[in-house]
Amino acid sequence: MRAAIICIGDELMNGSTLNSNSAWIAREISKYYDLKIKHIETLHDDINIITDKLSKLLINDCDYIFITGGLGPTHDDITKNALKIFFKSNLILEKKYYDRLISYFGSKNDDIKHLKSQARILECSNPIPNMLGTALGMHIENKNSSIFVMPGVPSEMKAMMKNEIIPNFIEKKCKYKINKKVFLTFGITESRLSNILSDLISLNSDEFKFSFLPNYSGVKFVVISKNRNKKKYNILCSNIENLIKDYCYGFDNDTLSGVVGKKLISKKITLSLAESCTGGMISKKITDIPNSSLFFKGTVVAYSNQIKEQILEVPKDILNKYGAVSSEVALIMAEKIKKIFNSEIGLSITGISGPGGGSDKKPVGLVYIAAVYKEDSIVKRFNLLKDRNKNREISSNLALDILRNIVSKKKDLHK
Amino acid sequence: MRAAIICIGDELMNGSTLNSNSAWIAREISKYYDLKIKHIETLHDDINIITDKLSKLLINDCDYIFITGGLGPTHDDITKNALKIFFKSNLILEKKYYDRLISYFGSKNDDIKHLKSQARILECSNPIPNMLGTALGMHIENKNSSIFVMPGVPSEMKAMMKNEIIPNFIEKKCKYKINKKVFLTFGITESRLSNILSDLISLNSDEFKFSFLPNYSGVKFVVISKNRNKKKYNILCSNIENLIKDYCYGFDNDTLSGVVGKKLISKKITLSLAESCTGGMISKKITDIPNSSLFFKGTVVAYSNQIKEQILEVPKDILNKYGAVSSEVALIMAEKIKKIFNSEIGLSITGISGPGGGSDKKPVGLVYIAAVYKEDSIVKRFNLLKDRNKNREISSNLALDILRNIVSKKKDLHK
Repeated sequence: MRAAIICIGDELMNGSTLNSNSAWIAREISKYYDLKIKHIETLHDDINIITDKLSKLLINDCDYIFITGGLGPTHDDITKNALKIFFKSNLILEKKYYDRLISYFGSKNDDIKHLKSQARILECSNPIPNMLGTALGMHIENKNSSIFVMPGVPSEMKAMMKNEIIPNFIEKKCKYKINKKVFLTFGITESRLSNILSDLISLNSDEFKFSFLPNYSGVKFVVISKNRNKKKYNILCSNIENLIKDYCYGFDNDTLSGVVGKKLISKKITLSLAESCTGGMISKKITDIPNSSLFFKGTVVAYSNQIKEQILEVPKDILNKYGAVSSEVALIMAEKIKKIFNSEIGLSITGISGPGGGSDKKPVGLVYIAAVYKEDSIVKRFNLLKDRNKNREISSNLALDILRNIVSKKKDLHK
Repeated sequence: MRAAIICIGDELMNGSTLNSNSAWIAREISKYYDLKIKHIETLHDDINIITDKLSKLLINDCDYIFITGGLGPTHDDITKNALKIFFKSNLILEKKYYDRLISYFGSKNDDIKHLKSQARILECSNPIPNMLGTALGMHIENKNSSIFVMPGVPSEMKAMMKNEIIPNFIEKKCKYKINKKVFLTFGITESRLSNILSDLISLNSDEFKFSFLPNYSGVKFVVISKNRNKKKYNILCSNIENLIKDYCYGFDNDTLSGVVGKKLISKKITLSLAESCTGGMISKKITDIPNSSLFFKGTVVAYSNQIKEQILEVPKDILNKYGAVSSEVALIMAEKIKKIFNSEIGLSITGISGPGGGSDKKPVGLVYIAAVYKEDSIVKRFNLLKDRNKNREISSNLALDILRNIVSKKKDLHK
């Protein structure tokens, strides 16, 4: 079966809004065998362009057409009008839905007019309720195509897809989910990873598709089975896991901070942080996780030497002798934060993110990360990049990976 | 003039990578009069699909065609082959560029083979140097169309656009930049903002296009002039600024934290933070700014009551009587962090981000923000949403906006 994703909106065409809807829809519907995405396009808010595209897609036998955007109440939202013309169908009011909107939102005349337009759908369509907003979605069956029309607001579109469209229309026709696994790795380059896996890949490339996706949070290794043989897929996946277990921190939608958090919770180990160059970024990532208060005590962001000295009790002579960016200071920061916050693990980071602050001896990108756990301690030195944002992103991930190694105890702290 | 943006890659078609290239290119080239984006599409790594699309775009008289992706060295990068077939042109080696690549990267045989493919371009094209990666870009003139072929890696594509394509090819033909200004507001709803501006909008809608873009960092108000009359545009912009000056924190690419940082630096005011529910997010945003060490002393992330008591010196009886999420505790946190870190401003935040931790009296979304500056202090209470991520995002922006009001002194601290 063939699918098309069409996102409508001038704000997408001029780039003032990033189109995240197509990728999300694509990801969700690529999970099924027998469903291939053939077309992803963005269109202007323009009746002729929309009707023209629709007729081409119907001629090309698209089984599923997903349309987002242009259902709002303002003058530039014209998707519904375009469809009205294309399908030669009137707009009718969904009375029940309208009453509910009025009881929730309708206080002023202006609102009532807007809400009425939001509750109108094509006569030839079935409504798709909007649980998070006002504009009704529509489902239209035409020739052999199922057309789904949704609002452009990502949360509203996603709720319609998850609650209505995928369970009621996709999964009834596409019964088999693709065997796909994403192995999330950190601390290894793409080429080293591909060396470790090269035999396995060449032995299995007839039946499986393999790909490497590197970014600043590590290299993702994706395995997709070309057939529905679940047994062979499972064996292959466990072989892969075995080969890369030292670097693989999780699968699919896991995050480094989420994995670390889960381990800390299950092992009942508490954590505190002393951050300098990352300025709160590691804490932010840790507290992105719900329930992080179960293991996370807190952080001192010591952005000045004064705070390192006064709050983190780094002796002035050590700061003067070795400088704030040094293994000596990193280690003391980790020890002190552990002691002051009375946590089981103390982790610290100090470095030069840039653009300023670098010198020949200590260039931009130099970072020290230290961790103290029980009687054990570790300090690592990294030479990163010249770019502030990338340095902060990479070094916060390096710190999380050090935490992961400590709590997973797969490796000795010093390896 | 008409432009098309074509992004090539299976990883874009199945949603495993978010396509941010089209929006970026669209934003850059929408800055010019006489240049209209007519087509934005994503394509599979498939020679037939690519050549087919290219012939359609050339028939449709596209003046500019921007192509990204599929220039890498691996088997699934087939853009160059597709173009080779389409233009019936051979691949030639750019010797100078290749030598430079080898001297930078080439140590192993495998690398050398890869680098050679990266330094090959179509005979009918001119090379576009890649300053940040290995794959050469290409510029092809065909009939009346200029075709630019770039790598899919965003940083490499952006550098080619900024350094070569925009100055040498776009700006030579499109001489006039569109008069466009984005007013960034915070602390006002879309409907209130539109009420304030409604007269101005209806008086000027023949010559200007206005739009409102709300999100969790405030409402953006965009003004685009339909003609090149700079004088009228400037007058209109200063009128708008005047009408919304209490809410407008900046323009175009400004950020709330960037604006706050600049003001703190220029007024030589130092800042420290005590964060609870935001867990380091405000610090992270503040330290995203280069030079934040000039005004920012640091943060205590007090994620447990123990730390609030022990480090921030909030008395136990106050914590017990009012609870950690209370105006009383927020105020003490701000006062203490100011004192302990010896900064001019102390700002604190305490709240319930969710999903857990809420009660009938103190539901998820309740947040207190306090600030102390000189002899003055302020505490604000907010009732936000049920969603953890949104609450953290909104409340960190609310805190930054309170800081902005303090340092810009447009309003009294208590308004």
